[in-house]
Amino acid sequence: MATETLPSGFSIQNVLTFFLLINIDLLHCQQFTIPFKAPTECGVEEFFDISSLSCVKCGPNQLRSTTGLTCVCKTGYRSVTTDKASNTCQQCPTDKPAVTKDGFGCIRCPGSLSDDGMCLCPPANVLVERDVSGNLLDEAKCETCSRNIPAFSVPSSSGDRCERCQASFINTSCVCNTPNVLAGGLCFPPGILPTNANPSVNYGQLKFSVQSAWFVKNLYSSAAACLVFSNLTACQALGNMCVMNMHSFSGTSNDACGLFNTIFRSKAVMSSTQDISYWRANLPWLYYGDEPGLAGRVLQTDPVPVGFSFRGKNKNTEIKLLAAVYNIRGEFLKWEQIGGGNLQLCPDTAAKQAAAYSFGTAYQQSCDLSVAELLQAHSEPLFYDVFMDLGGGENRKLLPLPTLVYNQQYNGRFINQESMKNWYLSRRMFLVDTLGGREKSMSSLPKVIRVATSVKIRFQLVPRTQEGQIFPPLMIVTYTDVLITDINTQTVSTMFAMEYEMDQGEARIKTDTALGVMGGLAVLYSLLKTVSWKRRIGSPLIDAGTMFKFLLFYSGDLANVFFVVTVGTGLYWLIFYKVSVAQQFVSVLLPLPAQEEQFVTYIGCAFTLKAIQFLHKLILQVSVDIFLIDWERPRNKASRTVQAAGEPKRDPAPVSIWRTYFVANEWNEIQTFRKISPTFQIMAVLFILEVVGFSNLALRDPWSTLQRSSQAYTPSYSLILRYSLAATLWLCIGLLQVIFFTVFYEHFVEDKIRQFVDLCSISNISVLLLSHRCFGYYIHGRSVHGHADTNMEEMNNNLKREAESLCGQRGLLPNTDIQTFQVSLTTHLRSQYERIREPLSRRNGPSRLMDTSTNNPFEQNFRAYHTMNHFLGSIVDHAHPDMDYIVKDKLMFERVIGMEFLEPNEKSIFYNDDAHSFSDVLFYGNEATLLIFDTLFFCVVDLGSQSFVLAAVLTYVQQMIFRLIRNFLGRKNLVNKTLVDERFLI
Amino acid sequence: MATETLPSGFSIQNVLTFFLLINIDLLHCQQFTIPFKAPTECGVEEFFDISSLSCVKCGPNQLRSTTGLTCVCKTGYRSVTTDKASNTCQQCPTDKPAVTKDGFGCIRCPGSLSDDGMCLCPPANVLVERDVSGNLLDEAKCETCSRNIPAFSVPSSSGDRCERCQASFINTSCVCNTPNVLAGGLCFPPGILPTNANPSVNYGQLKFSVQSAWFVKNLYSSAAACLVFSNLTACQALGNMCVMNMHSFSGTSNDACGLFNTIFRSKAVMSSTQDISYWRANLPWLYYGDEPGLAGRVLQTDPVPVGFSFRGKNKNTEIKLLAAVYNIRGEFLKWEQIGGGNLQLCPDTAAKQAAAYSFGTAYQQSCDLSVAELLQAHSEPLFYDVFMDLGGGENRKLLPLPTLVYNQQYNGRFINQESMKNWYLSRRMFLVDTLGGREKSMSSLPKVIRVATSVKIRFQLVPRTQEGQIFPPLMIVTYTDVLITDINTQTVSTMFAMEYEMDQGEARIKTDTALGVMGGLAVLYSLLKTVSWKRRIGSPLIDAGTMFKFLLFYSGDLANVFFVVTVGTGLYWLIFYKVSVAQQFVSVLLPLPAQEEQFVTYIGCAFTLKAIQFLHKLILQVSVDIFLIDWERPRNKASRTVQAAGEPKRDPAPVSIWRTYFVANEWNEIQTFRKISPTFQIMAVLFILEVVGFSNLALRDPWSTLQRSSQAYTPSYSLILRYSLAATLWLCIGLLQVIFFTVFYEHFVEDKIRQFVDLCSISNISVLLLSHRCFGYYIHGRSVHGHADTNMEEMNNNLKREAESLCGQRGLLPNTDIQTFQVSLTTHLRSQYERIREPLSRRNGPSRLMDTSTNNPFEQNFRAYHTMNHFLGSIVDHAHPDMDYIVKDKLMFERVIGMEFLEPNEKSIFYNDDAHSFSDVLFYGNEATLLIFDTLFFCVVDLGSQSFVLAAVLTYVQQMIFRLIRNFLGRKNLVNKTLVDERFLI
Repeated sequence: MATETLPSGFSIQNVLTFFLLINIDLLHCQQFTIPFKAPTECGVEEFFDISSLSCVKCGPNQLRSTTGLTCVCKTGYRSVTTDKASNTCQQCPTDKPAVTKDGFGCIRCPGSLSDDGMCLCPPANVLVERDVSGNLLDEAKCETCSRNIPAFSVPSSSGDRCERCQASFINTSCVCNTPNVLAGGLCFPPGILPTNANPSVNYGQLKFSVQSAWFVKNLYSSAAACLVFSNLTACQALGNMCVMNMHSFSGTSNDACGLFNTIFRSKAVMSSTQDISYWRANLPWLYYGDEPGLAGRVLQTDPVPVGFSFRGKNKNTEIKLLAAVYNIRGEFLKWEQIGGGNLQLCPDTAAKQAAAYSFGTAYQQSCDLSVAELLQAHSEPLFYDVFMDLGGGENRKLLPLPTLVYNQQYNGRFINQESMKNWYLSRRMFLVDTLGGREKSMSSLPKVIRVATSVKIRFQLVPRTQEGQIFPPLMIVTYTDVLITDINTQTVSTMFAMEYEMDQGEARIKTDTALGVMGGLAVLYSLLKTVSWKRRIGSPLIDAGTMFKFLLFYSGDLANVFFVVTVGTGLYWLIFYKVSVAQQFVSVLLPLPAQEEQFVTYIGCAFTLKAIQFLHKLILQVSVDIFLIDWERPRNKASRTVQAAGEPKRDPAPVSIWRTYFVANEWNEIQTFRKISPTFQIMAVLFILEVVGFSNLALRDPWSTLQRSSQAYTPSYSLILRYSLAATLWLCIGLLQVIFFTVFYEHFVEDKIRQFVDLCSISNISVLLLSHRCFGYYIHGRSVHGHADTNMEEMNNNLKREAESLCGQRGLLPNTDIQTFQVSLTTHLRSQYERIREPLSRRNGPSRLMDTSTNNPFEQNFRAYHTMNHFLGSIVDHAHPDMDYIVKDKLMFERVIGMEFLEPNEKSIFYNDDAHSFSDVLFYGNEATLLIFDTLFFCVVDLGSQSFVLAAVLTYVQQMIFRLIRNFLGRKNLVNKTLVDERFLI
Repeated sequence: MATETLPSGFSIQNVLTFFLLINIDLLHCQQFTIPFKAPTECGVEEFFDISSLSCVKCGPNQLRSTTGLTCVCKTGYRSVTTDKASNTCQQCPTDKPAVTKDGFGCIRCPGSLSDDGMCLCPPANVLVERDVSGNLLDEAKCETCSRNIPAFSVPSSSGDRCERCQASFINTSCVCNTPNVLAGGLCFPPGILPTNANPSVNYGQLKFSVQSAWFVKNLYSSAAACLVFSNLTACQALGNMCVMNMHSFSGTSNDACGLFNTIFRSKAVMSSTQDISYWRANLPWLYYGDEPGLAGRVLQTDPVPVGFSFRGKNKNTEIKLLAAVYNIRGEFLKWEQIGGGNLQLCPDTAAKQAAAYSFGTAYQQSCDLSVAELLQAHSEPLFYDVFMDLGGGENRKLLPLPTLVYNQQYNGRFINQESMKNWYLSRRMFLVDTLGGREKSMSSLPKVIRVATSVKIRFQLVPRTQEGQIFPPLMIVTYTDVLITDINTQTVSTMFAMEYEMDQGEARIKTDTALGVMGGLAVLYSLLKTVSWKRRIGSPLIDAGTMFKFLLFYSGDLANVFFVVTVGTGLYWLIFYKVSVAQQFVSVLLPLPAQEEQFVTYIGCAFTLKAIQFLHKLILQVSVDIFLIDWERPRNKASRTVQAAGEPKRDPAPVSIWRTYFVANEWNEIQTFRKISPTFQIMAVLFILEVVGFSNLALRDPWSTLQRSSQAYTPSYSLILRYSLAATLWLCIGLLQVIFFTVFYEHFVEDKIRQFVDLCSISNISVLLLSHRCFGYYIHGRSVHGHADTNMEEMNNNLKREAESLCGQRGLLPNTDIQTFQVSLTTHLRSQYERIREPLSRRNGPSRLMDTSTNNPFEQNFRAYHTMNHFLGSIVDHAHPDMDYIVKDKLMFERVIGMEFLEPNEKSIFYNDDAHSFSDVLFYGNEATLLIFDTLFFCVVDLGSQSFVLAAVLTYVQQMIFRLIRNFLGRKNLVNKTLVDERFLI
C-alpha cells in the first residue's frame, strides 16, 4: 500500500505517522502472530470483534449478547440510536420500567416484569405494546384470546397476537376437554388406542431400552392421528418409529411396531394399496407377511422382467435403484436415485461409488467413521423405501426391494438369522439414527446411536437363464447400536456391498462327475503302470511294495485329474465371465468367496499329489543304474601279439580315460537340463500378470480390460479366476517355450540330448542306463572309425569322413542309424550284472572287518570296472550265447501305454527307440510333470498370499533347491555307478 | 399377517374377502410392481399420496397445493373442518367474498381482492382481519403505520402489523429522503462513496464479466455501511466480495476490491488491528503490502517459533491449522480446525484426509467433481482466514498464513505468476463460489462458478536448522472459472496438496564438488590405464586410437564416479529422512520432483557410461588370444628311437586330443560364470522390495514402516529414494552373494576357477591367454606325473599320489606351487607367435585365389597347431635363449595400479599371480563392472516405469541376452584360436 493515493484531507503529520507505522512493522514482520480468542472466552462486558478476532469492551451499560458477537443493553436499559454507527443504552424511567420487545422503547406493564426486563402476561394472553397503527402505548395491555365459536383463537407462538387454533381442537371451543386426550398438540377422542404406548427404543445389542424423547413426544400422537385422522404424515412418522426400532415387535407390547400393527390390522377391511396386500391404505409398507416360506417364494419364484447383458448391442449393466425418501416427521421429501453415496456411508469419489451400480461388479466398500462426524452429518435419520427401476418409458415400473433386517426380532427370536424358511422380509430402512437415542430432550447428546453398519444388496441369477434374468434383489441390512462414550474418539465400521450369486449346485455336480469319471480312468491307468513296473523289475509277486507303488502312480494320475478339472473349471469361469462374447446376456456369475472353498480344496489335493509324484520321480532318477562301456581297445594290441615273444613286458599304451570323463561330465551336465528355461518362464508369467496387467482379469467384475485407472473402483480378486489365469498363463508360456525349444532351438541352435548321443558315438563309448531292475536304456556309442582315442588331425578327419558318409553308419545293427534303445533284460543277465557290480556297490556299505585286509578296495573296483566293461561289451557283441538279445521295434500300442508285452525270458530285447526316451531318467524327459508341479506351486503360493511376486520368488527358490538336490544326488550316483572321479564332473 | 388377531366388529364376510385377497395376492406375488409417479406428474385436481406413492383425486372444490402433496381449496372457497379427518371447502358468500389469511373464514374487504382471493391493502398499510382478542371482523381494515416520531413504524414483512423501522432511517421519520441514498434496505447520507460502484464479477479466464445479482444487491450497501456505520459484518461482506473477485483490482475501477481499498486507505489514520499494519480496524485483512520483495521478507526472514521432529520424545509432526470461517453475508461462523475435508474437496476417508496434516508427508489428493454436486453442496461460499496454531496453552498464538492467489490480477498483470519479488500476498480464501455467477436472481442457475481447483500449502525448512524450524507456510490457491453448460455431465478437477521443500542449493554444490574432484581423479586413473595399455600392447605411439582408448577407460571411471556420487547422495536422503534417529529434529527434507531432475540426469550419465565400459570389456573378452599347450608326448617315443631302424614305419600311438577337448570345453563353460547368481540377485531384490515391502521406504513421508495399511494414505514415490533404495539393496545383496560365494561356497562346495587350474594340471595342458598384444596370462598345467593320457587306474593313482604329496609340485619353477602367471612378452616373442599363428588366422579372411590350390587348409592348420604347441612348449622350457623369460613377483604398487614398471625388452617376464587374475578375461573377474551395470540398468528401468517388477524382468532379459552373446562369441573365438571343433564345446 505504499503507492496508495492519499485521500484528500490528510495532514502531513498523519501521513508521516502512517509510514512510520508501516516501517516499524516491516522491521518486525516476525511479529505477525496474534493471540487466539474464541467468542466464549470474552468476558461478560466484552464482545468478540469479528474483524480483529479479539475481545473488545462493550459500551457503557452494555453486556455481551448470547452469541457473544455483539453487545446488548443491560436489563432495564433501552437502545438509543445516536450517530447511526454505534448504539448507546439509556436506563428506562421508573414510571415506564419495562423495555419494549424491540428494545428501543420504555413502557409500563399491566402485570409483572420478566427476568429480561420486559412485560409478562398470563398464559393464553397476548401482550400488546403498540396500537394498530404502530404507535407505542404508554402502558402495555394483556388481552385474552377469544377461544369460543366463532373466533376459535389462541395466542400465537410469539405471544403477541391471537390466531385460529388447530383443527382437531375445534369442537365448541379451542380447549381439549376431558375425556378427550391432548397429545402432540392435537386433541383426540378418548379410547381409540391404548394410552400406555411404550415410547422406548429397544437396543437389543446393548441389552437395554431408552425412553426416547422423540418417541415420548410423538409416538402416541402419531399413532392416534394416523388411526383417527388418517393423517398421511402421521402414519409415515409412526412407521418410521417402527423402523427405528429395527422392525422388531412382540405380540404383547405397545411399542412403535406394536401400534403400527394394531392400526395395520384395523385397516384390513380397506382395500390394499397398489394391489399389494401387505400395503394398506394410508400406511407405509413395512412388512411382508410372516407365513413360513414366504421369503423363498418372494425371492426365488418369479424373475424380474429385465435382462442384463455385459456385451453387445443389448449391453445393459446399469442397476437403477430409486428410493422414496421420508424424513423422521413422515414428510415425503423426494424420489431419489440411489447412488452418489446416499446408501454408501463411506466417502469416496463419485466414479468409485458409481461402480456399485454396474451389474456383475462385486462391490464392497468399508471404512471407519467418526461418531462425531456422524452426529454432525445425520442430525435426523432419513428413511428410504428402495425400489428397482424397471424402466419402460411412459409406463415406468418400479419393483419394491425386499429388505432383510438381519437383527430384527420377532417375539424375541432373531428369525432373520435363521434359515430362509423363517425369514420375515420387510421394507424401509435408515442409515444413521442419532435421534432415537436421545433421552431427555431432542437436543441432548444421544445415549446410543444406531447405524446401518452393513448394507448388502444381493442379486441372484435365475438358473439356466439365457436372457440375463435375475430374481428380485434382496437388501440385507444389519444395524449396530453404538453406546456413546466419547464422540471424538469413537468410530463405527460400516460396509456397503453388492453381491451376485447363482446356484452353483449344478456346476458342482458337473465338476464332481468329471472328477469321478476321470478318477476312475486314473485307477485303470495306474494299475497298468503298476503291471508294467512289475514286469520291468522282473518280479511277479504282489506285495505291500506293489501296493505302495500303485499308490504312488495313482497319486500322480489323480493329481493330473484334479489339475485338469480345476484348470478346466477355472477356464470356464474365465472365458464365460470375462473374455468371451458368450455373455451376450448374462448367464453365468462368479461363485462367491464362500462357494470357492471346495475349488481351493481341489487345488490343494492336486498340489499335494503332484508333489508326491515329483518326489517319487526325483528319487527314481537319482538312483538309476548307469554304466559307460568303453569300446576303445589299445592301439598296439595287434602289433603286440606279433611281438608277444620279443617284448612280453612292454605295456600297451593305456586306453585314455579322458573320453569316459568327457562323457560322464556331459551326462552330469544334462541331468537337470529342461525343455524350457524355468527362470524365463517365471519372468514371462510375472511380466504378463503384473506389468501387462493380466492380473486385472481376475477381478470380480465382468470387464476384460487390462489397464485399470487408479481413479476407478477396484473390486476384490476371485480366487478361481486368479488360479485359472495363472495356471493357464503358466501352461501356455510353458507350451510356447517347449515348442520353441523342440521346433526351433533344437533344430537350429543346439540339441543337448542329440549332442550327447553324438558325443557317445564320437568318443566310442556306449551308455547303459537301467531305470528298473530288468529295464533300461542303451545308447550305442561304438565309433565307426574303430578308434576315437586319437589326435586332432585324425579326429577331424574322422568327423569329415563321417560328414561325407565315407564310413559305416553308427547304428547297432549294420546299416542302421539307430543308436538309442530301450532294453528289456533277462533276469539271468541282470543277476550276472549284479554279481559283477557287487564290489562297486559294496563301497557304499558300512565299513566291515573285511576292509582291514590288505585287499585294496580301489583295485577291486577297477577290476570290477574292467570286467563289467568287458562283459557288457561282449553282450552287445553277441559273444554270450546264453545271454543273447534281439533287436525289434516296439508296437504302437506298446509305445502308447508304456508297457512291453513280450517278457524277455530267453533273450533280452532291444527296442529301437528313435525318440531318445532315455531322457526319462533326466529332467528333460519329464517336462510335463515338472511344469505342472511348478504351475501348482506357483498357484498355491498365490492363493495363500494373493501376491504373484511372492509366488514367483518362491517358485524360483523351489526350482533352484530341487535342481541343486537333483544335481548333487545325481552326481553322487554317477560317481558311484561309473567310478568316474567326482573331480572330473565339473 | 395371517396370524393377526381380528379387531372386533368384523363381519365374517369381510374376513373371508380379506383372506381371499391375500391368497390371490400370494398366487401373483410377481405382481409386486408399481407404476412410477412423481408429485409433479399428478394433475391439477390430484395430489400425490405419499403412502401409496400414487396420484389421488382431491375432494370437490379442491386443487393441488404448490408442493403437490396436499389439496387446498380453490380461490374463493374457505376450509371447513367437518369430521376432523378430511377438510371440505365451502364457497364464501357474496357479501364476504374474500377468504381470511388462515383460510378458514370469509370476510369483506375494504379494497380490492388479490389473485388468491384475499384482501389487498395499499403499500405501507397493514391488513387487519381480527380484533385484538382474536375475533374475526366482518370487514377487514387497512391501517397506515405511523412513520413519524415517536412511533417510527413501518409494516412488518408479513404485512399484518406495524413494527419499528431500521435504525439507519430514523431521522425525523421512517423515510429515506433525498439526498439520502437508499441501498440494501439501509439509508445512507449522500456523497460518502461514488455511486457508480461496479457490481460485476470479472471472470478473467473466460474473458467476460457477469453483473452479479448478489453484488448488485449488496456491493454498494455493504461498502457504505462499512464506511459510514463501521458495521462489522458489512465490512466482512465487502471483503468477501473482493475475495470472490480473486483479490483482483485495478487502481481506477470501483469494483469490490476497489471499494475495499478506498475504505482501507480512508482508515489509514486509525490504529491498525493486532499491531499489523495491513489489518485495519473493522476491516478484514485481505492484502499484504505491495512493496517489491515484501513476499520474500515475509516468507523467508523469520522462522516460525515451533520445531518439528519426526522421532524421539519430542516427536511433533502435527500441523495444526485453524480457520476463522465467515459466511457470504460477513457473519463470523466459528473457529474451525482445518482437516476432515474442509479444504479438501475430494471425498476420502477421515484417516487418509488427516494424513495431510502430518509434517513431512507429501500429500496430494485430486479428483473430478461433478458440477451438479458442487452446486448442491455449496449453495453459498464460505470464507476462510487460515492461521497456523502455534500452541502455547493459555497464551495460544496464531500465525496468519500468507496466501498467494495464483491468478490474482493487479492492474491487469498476473503478478503472482512472476518471480517471488513481485508477489502480492493476500489473505482469506474460498473453495467454491456458485453465487457470484448468478446474473438475474440469487435463485437462478449460475452462469459461471468459480472453484479453488488447486490448494497447495508449502512448507519451507529453515536452512541449516537443527531444531526443525520452518518459515511461515505459504498457501497457494488457484481458482478456475467454470462456464456452466450442462451441470449433469460437467466435472471440475480439483487438487489439494501439501509440499515440503528446503533449499537444495547447498546439497547441489556439495554434489557438484564431489563430482568435480572425483572426476579429476578419474582422469588421472584413466591416464594411468592408458599408459599401462600402451605398454601392454608394446606400442609407444600416441595416436587417435590411444585417445579413443583413453575415452573408453575414462567412461568407465566416470561412470563409477557418477554411480558413487548418486548412490551416496541417495543414501544420505534415505538415511537422514527415513531411517535414522538423526531427525531428532527435522533438518532435512526431500527434494521436490522438480529438484530431482539433475539427479536423474546423473543417473542417466552413469548408466550410459557404464554401458560403454561394459560393451568395451565384452568386446575385449571375446577377442582374446588363447592357446592350449599340450605337454603330452607319445608314450612309446623312447622305445621307438631304440627300434628306429627295425620298424621305422610304425607310428607312435597318437597323443589323444580328448584332454584338450575337455579343457576347452571347461573353459567354454566358465566364460559367463559369475561370482553371484544373477537370477537369485533379481529375485532377492524383488522379494525384499515388493513382498517384504521395502519399496514403502521410498514414499515421500518420514516413516520407515514397511507394511502400510490399505486404509492409510499412500504418498507418491520419491525418485531419489527409489533409486537409492534399489541401488543399495542391489549392491548389498550382490556383496552378500559375493562374500557367500568367495568365502563359503568356493571353499566348501566348488571353485570353478581353481577346478579349471587343477584340470589343466591333471590333463597336462597349459593355457596361454593373451589379452593384449604383449601381455596376458599363463596357466601352467604340466602334469607332475609326466603323462596324463592314461587309463582310470593310473589316473586315480596319480591323483592319490599327489594327494599324499608323493610327487613333485605343480609350479612352473621347481618346488613351487604357483601355476598361474601374468606374462609380459617381448615384442620379438610376440612376432614369432604371430608368424606361427598366421595360417590359423587366415582362415577367417576372405577366400582367395590361393585357396583353390591343392594346399589343404586343414592340414596347414594342424601343422600350425603343432608348430605352435611345440614352440610355446619350448619357450616355457627355456629352449629358446633369444626368447627366454624370467619369473618374478609383482611389486605391491604394480598390483594396485595394474601396470608393470619393467618393460620386457630382452626377456619376457612371468609374474607370479596367486590371485588367478586370468579370470579378468572372463565374466568372473569383472563382477564389479557387471554388478554396477546391472544395478544401473535395474534403476534406470525403474525410474522410467516406476515398476520394480518390470525392472526385474527387463534386467533378467538383458542379462540373458548378454550372456548368450558372450557365450556365442566367446565360443567362436575359442574355436578360432584353439582349433578345437565347435561340436565338442557343449
